[in-house]
Amino acid sequence: MMISGNLLIGGSARRGNNGAFFGLDAATGEPLEGSFGGATIADLEDAAALAWQAFGIYRQTSLHLRSRFLSKIADEIAELGEDLISRCMAETGLPRARVESERARTVGQLRLFAAVVRDGSFLEARIDPGQPDRKPSPRPDLRLMKAPLGPVAVFGASNFPLAFSVAGGDTSSALAAGCPVIVKAHSAHPGTSELVGLAVRRAVQACDLPEGVFSLLYDSGNDISQALVAHPKICAVGFTGSRSGGKAFMKIAAARNQPIPVYAEMSSINPVILFPVALARRGAAIGRAFASSLTLGAGQFCTSPGLILAEQGNGLEEFIRGAKDALSGIPAATMLTDRIRKSYGAAVEQRAGRRGVELLAQGLPASGRAAQSVIFSTDARTFLAGVDLHDEIFGAASLVVRCTDQNELEKVVHSLEGQLTIAIHIDPEDHDSARKMLPALEGLAGRILVNGFGTGVEVAHAMVHGGPYPATSDGRSTSVGSLAIERFLRPICYQDTPDDLLPQVLRDRNPESVRRMENGIFV
Amino acid sequence: MMISGNLLIGGSARRGNNGAFFGLDAATGEPLEGSFGGATIADLEDAAALAWQAFGIYRQTSLHLRSRFLSKIADEIAELGEDLISRCMAETGLPRARVESERARTVGQLRLFAAVVRDGSFLEARIDPGQPDRKPSPRPDLRLMKAPLGPVAVFGASNFPLAFSVAGGDTSSALAAGCPVIVKAHSAHPGTSELVGLAVRRAVQACDLPEGVFSLLYDSGNDISQALVAHPKICAVGFTGSRSGGKAFMKIAAARNQPIPVYAEMSSINPVILFPVALARRGAAIGRAFASSLTLGAGQFCTSPGLILAEQGNGLEEFIRGAKDALSGIPAATMLTDRIRKSYGAAVEQRAGRRGVELLAQGLPASGRAAQSVIFSTDARTFLAGVDLHDEIFGAASLVVRCTDQNELEKVVHSLEGQLTIAIHIDPEDHDSARKMLPALEGLAGRILVNGFGTGVEVAHAMVHGGPYPATSDGRSTSVGSLAIERFLRPICYQDTPDDLLPQVLRDRNPESVRRMENGIFV
Repeated sequence: MMISGNLLIGGSARRGNNGAFFGLDAATGEPLEGSFGGATIADLEDAAALAWQAFGIYRQTSLHLRSRFLSKIADEIAELGEDLISRCMAETGLPRARVESERARTVGQLRLFAAVVRDGSFLEARIDPGQPDRKPSPRPDLRLMKAPLGPVAVFGASNFPLAFSVAGGDTSSALAAGCPVIVKAHSAHPGTSELVGLAVRRAVQACDLPEGVFSLLYDSGNDISQALVAHPKICAVGFTGSRSGGKAFMKIAAARNQPIPVYAEMSSINPVILFPVALARRGAAIGRAFASSLTLGAGQFCTSPGLILAEQGNGLEEFIRGAKDALSGIPAATMLTDRIRKSYGAAVEQRAGRRGVELLAQGLPASGRAAQSVIFSTDARTFLAGVDLHDEIFGAASLVVRCTDQNELEKVVHSLEGQLTIAIHIDPEDHDSARKMLPALEGLAGRILVNGFGTGVEVAHAMVHGGPYPATSDGRSTSVGSLAIERFLRPICYQDTPDDLLPQVLRDRNPESVRRMENGIFV
Repeated sequence: MMISGNLLIGGSARRGNNGAFFGLDAATGEPLEGSFGGATIADLEDAAALAWQAFGIYRQTSLHLRSRFLSKIADEIAELGEDLISRCMAETGLPRARVESERARTVGQLRLFAAVVRDGSFLEARIDPGQPDRKPSPRPDLRLMKAPLGPVAVFGASNFPLAFSVAGGDTSSALAAGCPVIVKAHSAHPGTSELVGLAVRRAVQACDLPEGVFSLLYDSGNDISQALVAHPKICAVGFTGSRSGGKAFMKIAAARNQPIPVYAEMSSINPVILFPVALARRGAAIGRAFASSLTLGAGQFCTSPGLILAEQGNGLEEFIRGAKDALSGIPAATMLTDRIRKSYGAAVEQRAGRRGVELLAQGLPASGRAAQSVIFSTDARTFLAGVDLHDEIFGAASLVVRCTDQNELEKVVHSLEGQLTIAIHIDPEDHDSARKMLPALEGLAGRILVNGFGTGVEVAHAMVHGGPYPATSDGRSTSVGSLAIERFLRPICYQDTPDDLLPQVLRDRNPESVRRMENGIFV
């Protein structure tokens, strides 16, 4: 397939005239096919106007049609076949198996939302029938359902070129909710973005939906991204990326005439707490599993285990030995972009030279855009005193914090910021102390794992990929799993509204057979 | 009952030493029993520390106990009997029937949340059982439920001394969610607040809950209110009041180290759209009903009909005649505070003198803290050009906008800000044009009413009392009805967690028999 580098403004493709850039070959650093033109404000205005226009129609589509649309996007992405895989591998440096499994996840995610839409429970339809004879005053007929917020701006993520980019979790949940989407592609994989964007557009056309349901923009800098968040026709934002990027968007969104929700998944060090009995019995094995989770995808996961907490002792030394052994055999892996590789290198160098921090273990040496994995250690006192040690290093770097006792470990736990995940490693004899710590962990993270690591986020109904600020901008939400649809909905109540003016879902005969609450009971 | 004027910091009552104020008799302006001492920062710190301490325990209470607690608060408020009614009438100037019905609403609201808690569906429990044999990788066991955010700051509202104050909608939904509450009482009804606060405290004690579950503070200025929103142990805010107050809290909350959600219900003019056939057939009757809704509670409702939109013609003249006739017989009613009365007077005077605005009708003359109701009119062109005409006048003042045709009326609709309610008056022949307008109305308001007015907000499962900014700070929420509990919850996922470490609701045998989604199906 040819890569054009064009913007997709609804149904039309046009060249952006605001600067240009290329997708780069991860192996060679050379430009790949296609020069991508950055969008101008005029392009953004056109996309926003089309999205707004489409919203009036798209929000009223039947659940059946909207579900079919999501499935069709999945089909179209699957149809891209080897073209998508090879372009994505070239741009990101990710190995084939990872890109293929990410495609499977992306397609599966779209199909999951297709099922969620077909089911209709997400609308939370509720009916309190009128009671005209109630004393002292009659009760009106009240019917509630959740409705889409409006056009959503989605920012592609560098580390998930498929699953959190053009047709990833944010886009699929926003489309499922009934919101048109304008995607700002990540500049690290523009060719991948174009291929997927064209697939979405084919699905829009095949389902005879208004063209403005989907647009794809490139930004040669940050101006268009910021203008997109500030645009009056944009009603919500989905973003996965750096803390500084997320915070900038939060600020823009809060300063608008009409503030809008920003769902930014920003940064997390995903603490792993090793309890004494588990550590004593299985220290080395946990260490090996840790090294494997840490280096997965060159550590470029939001859920990468960046912090290990344990009481000092033989168990911890066994853990370190296990991790060290495993790490020493793990090859350096290519990082997503040159910039990410450089940031990683600089952060690792800084930490290596930091007072109170010791180098524990390293992976195999690296060259070019690849990066050497690394484990540091420090003591709890140093960690508690140093806010810089709480910062995420994006990549395969982790920090072991040695605590003198349980009390000190708890102090460290209470010093932590909001996280996406916290893992605990326990044996049955550890359950009592784990139970005492759980309320604190529940306050800190969106997902609590037992005897595992946070990498490998399952797309499921019960998944939470979110967590208290600053892990995300809004700890009330998840960006992965079917509950992600909640982010793009708001409730509307219809009072005493004649049946023929109600949305289908709230009509007496419930033509789409959606689960509804009636008088407080689900029927 | 004696009124002490003391702060309630958990289980202890103490005098606030940061200035003092009195409840004032609405009829005479004289101080009522009790001098209320404003809280100091130290008082706030104590209340916040107790709330935080209580949170660890309260969040883990069984649904049964939490439900019993809410019912007990309802019982204790009912037990206050005539003491509560007479103090509330004296402080607010509201008539007995209104105060009694508001008490009934408040007690009913607490009982509704008791039922919601007992039912447990609000927890949205979800289980995706593990699939250890899945290829290529096993699926972990995932269990999700919603958990409380943490201590909530609630600000009492002037216009609902019971239903949206100390134990009103915000407090009851936050307590139902599992969040301790710190209430800042509204200074317009401090004695009412103390009585209700003591009732809540008795319920805390009777249910053997940690004292920090509830505290009640007074603020002699705004400093403590602002410090409360900024306090690191406060995790969410519930507020009903002015737009300037709500916006100030939004700003403070967004600027915190850890931003928190603010649920502020701020201002709305609740447009009423009169369609041609209904107007032609029933103009006078709709006008009379309008006058009655406008003057209910001296117009001091968030949902008071402040704007009438219609095409000019005989029907509209009939409507105006009906409204004028009705209004001319309606006595002036006492407003909630002297300050509110003065603001109302000033706003009405300003509007009366505004170019392009005409005085249409008035209620009976007023004196003292009472206020004369008033209806103005203007033409659509003036309304479209004047942002000041979109502002709420808190009280029984409304504005009729005469439109030359349907097209101009639609322009006016599209110029509106976010609203709590929009009412349409239609006859069957109007349905087609109403249907065309509905998508715009859905984008503008949280509740759409047909052939009625927004006043008289039903506390029910299907109620939405919310709406796009600036009607509220967060259009994704409602502050009235059982869905209000959603505001104080966040999802947490437990992965591969042993049964004995899971919350009761997620354990295999589901001891509290809560509705759960398993593999995407509700069971």
